[in-house]
Amino acid sequence: MNAALSEFDLIARYFKRAVPGGMVGGGDDCALFTVAPGMQVATSTDLLLEGRHFFSDVDPFTLGHKTLAVNLSDLAAMGATPVGCLLGLGLPTIDESWVARFAEGFYTQAEAFNCPLLGGDTTRSLHGITLSVTVFGTVNSSLTMRRNAAQAGDEIWVSGELGAADIACRMIAGQAPMDAALLKATRAALETPTPRIALGQALAAHAHAAIDISDGLLQDLSHVLHASGCGATLDEAAIPVHPALQPLLTAPGAQARLRQAILAGGDLYELCFTAPVTAHAAIRVLGAQLNIPVTPIGMVTQAPGLVVYDRSGHAIADLPACFDHFRTK
Amino acid sequence: MNAALSEFDLIARYFKRAVPGGMVGGGDDCALFTVAPGMQVATSTDLLLEGRHFFSDVDPFTLGHKTLAVNLSDLAAMGATPVGCLLGLGLPTIDESWVARFAEGFYTQAEAFNCPLLGGDTTRSLHGITLSVTVFGTVNSSLTMRRNAAQAGDEIWVSGELGAADIACRMIAGQAPMDAALLKATRAALETPTPRIALGQALAAHAHAAIDISDGLLQDLSHVLHASGCGATLDEAAIPVHPALQPLLTAPGAQARLRQAILAGGDLYELCFTAPVTAHAAIRVLGAQLNIPVTPIGMVTQAPGLVVYDRSGHAIADLPACFDHFRTK
Repeated sequence: MNAALSEFDLIARYFKRAVPGGMVGGGDDCALFTVAPGMQVATSTDLLLEGRHFFSDVDPFTLGHKTLAVNLSDLAAMGATPVGCLLGLGLPTIDESWVARFAEGFYTQAEAFNCPLLGGDTTRSLHGITLSVTVFGTVNSSLTMRRNAAQAGDEIWVSGELGAADIACRMIAGQAPMDAALLKATRAALETPTPRIALGQALAAHAHAAIDISDGLLQDLSHVLHASGCGATLDEAAIPVHPALQPLLTAPGAQARLRQAILAGGDLYELCFTAPVTAHAAIRVLGAQLNIPVTPIGMVTQAPGLVVYDRSGHAIADLPACFDHFRTK
Repeated sequence: MNAALSEFDLIARYFKRAVPGGMVGGGDDCALFTVAPGMQVATSTDLLLEGRHFFSDVDPFTLGHKTLAVNLSDLAAMGATPVGCLLGLGLPTIDESWVARFAEGFYTQAEAFNCPLLGGDTTRSLHGITLSVTVFGTVNSSLTMRRNAAQAGDEIWVSGELGAADIACRMIAGQAPMDAALLKATRAALETPTPRIALGQALAAHAHAAIDISDGLLQDLSHVLHASGCGATLDEAAIPVHPALQPLLTAPGAQARLRQAILAGGDLYELCFTAPVTAHAAIRVLGAQLNIPVTPIGMVTQAPGLVVYDRSGHAIADLPACFDHFRTK
């Protein structure tokens, strides 16, 4: 065992054999395989474990919702149109009311995004609840947004507003002082995120690269930059902050916690994407049409590295650590 | 909690909302969705938990092999051509030699059946090893073998020889007396099954219905009969028995154990299929060409129910129970 080996290193080392031409393997939001000329299937899978990805007392409805939503978010980051999904469900016992509520939550997303549950696997687990979800969508081969497609000079954008999911998660986990009003205002961002399917589909004609912010803005953007061989500068003041977190901007001692939430908070499922400046106006129009905030927060640079300028214009020296399931904290 | 509710009841009750036209939802070996005229994608997912689906001291190479093989077997039962797969891997710690061996086993199947690993998800688990595998294949829409397509008058066939996996599993689990020579001769059937991909593809032009024997011959055949609205008769003497089990046919007191293994033993991954008698000769030729035994073992009947005639021609009154992950044994 090597505690310093991150999950990404692990995947890269043992599970990255070449895939045939026309396919996209691990490392993007979705894998892609070609099924007909001009048409690819985008697919993504998530493994979710009780005690690690969700709390044992989570409302099964919100768990069902989120389980599918986070995978739809991967389709959104590829600009894909959902086709269907599969569900693996490991349960220690059959609690019918739990299953019914979970199914209700799951189907809210399946039905809202035309992503019917096509099949799956059910088994009794020995320890806690285990979920695996796989989604499929179709994409026009010429319009996919790929993680390695960012170009120097691109603007970097995010959808929605950042920070709420992380703030809620840390209060629930006891890592931050409980503030009932703040939890109430942020909990939905954590538990019932909205995948940006329509935005992803619309962006595919304009954006170069896209990723959904599941591990944290800096980490996810770093994946794009690394794959694209670029660097970036971000402007902290430009990053849209969830309205419920506005008081933290001026509360004594809260800035570090807010910065952590904005720059490193995961579980967010907004899109971070890069696009040429010539697409700026079109992207503004798209955001307005879909009623989804879209905000430019920085630029892709030829020089490698990721520099974040703080509200007074200085480069932040000590960027917060991002989330890594395997790294010992 | 309702201990008498089987996993199949559970799935049927909460996760069987209708799927759009042209798709096949849960209940077949694979789900199907249409991606182009005449072309469908077949997909299947499995959730495998340490302590339930495999033993904690299993050789990681054989675990990697089997994890993909059992999913390829679902593609085989649809007559699909493998395209690729996804892997979810939950590990309590990162043991690099374990991961390397697991990957080696997994890739033997990925490479043997042209089913590249396209992506996945890796996470640290709190309790034991969790695996989820999803496979994709393409099928010609007009040639898929469907679970509901058996017709009265069809012959019922199985590929390969039955019983070895169950005999090995019970010895390893301590449910049957250990016989080192017998374990040695049967262990490969349990740990490194061969998915019948080429046979499934070839059968698609001839067979009506097919299923892979993962839960046990009687249970899996019952799924076909139930979905097709038919019954069947089977001839126990016709069912091909694994060569290593031949001594059990005459050993004192071993017949019940053998019958259990043949009729109800799961984890087998041979194909059970039905085809019109007019296809009999063609199927014999296919088996010879592929060097895979194919054996007719009974007939589909219009009358419902499943009757197995024993070696003396009497209907077996007390058929062995089949495997059900959720049923309390």
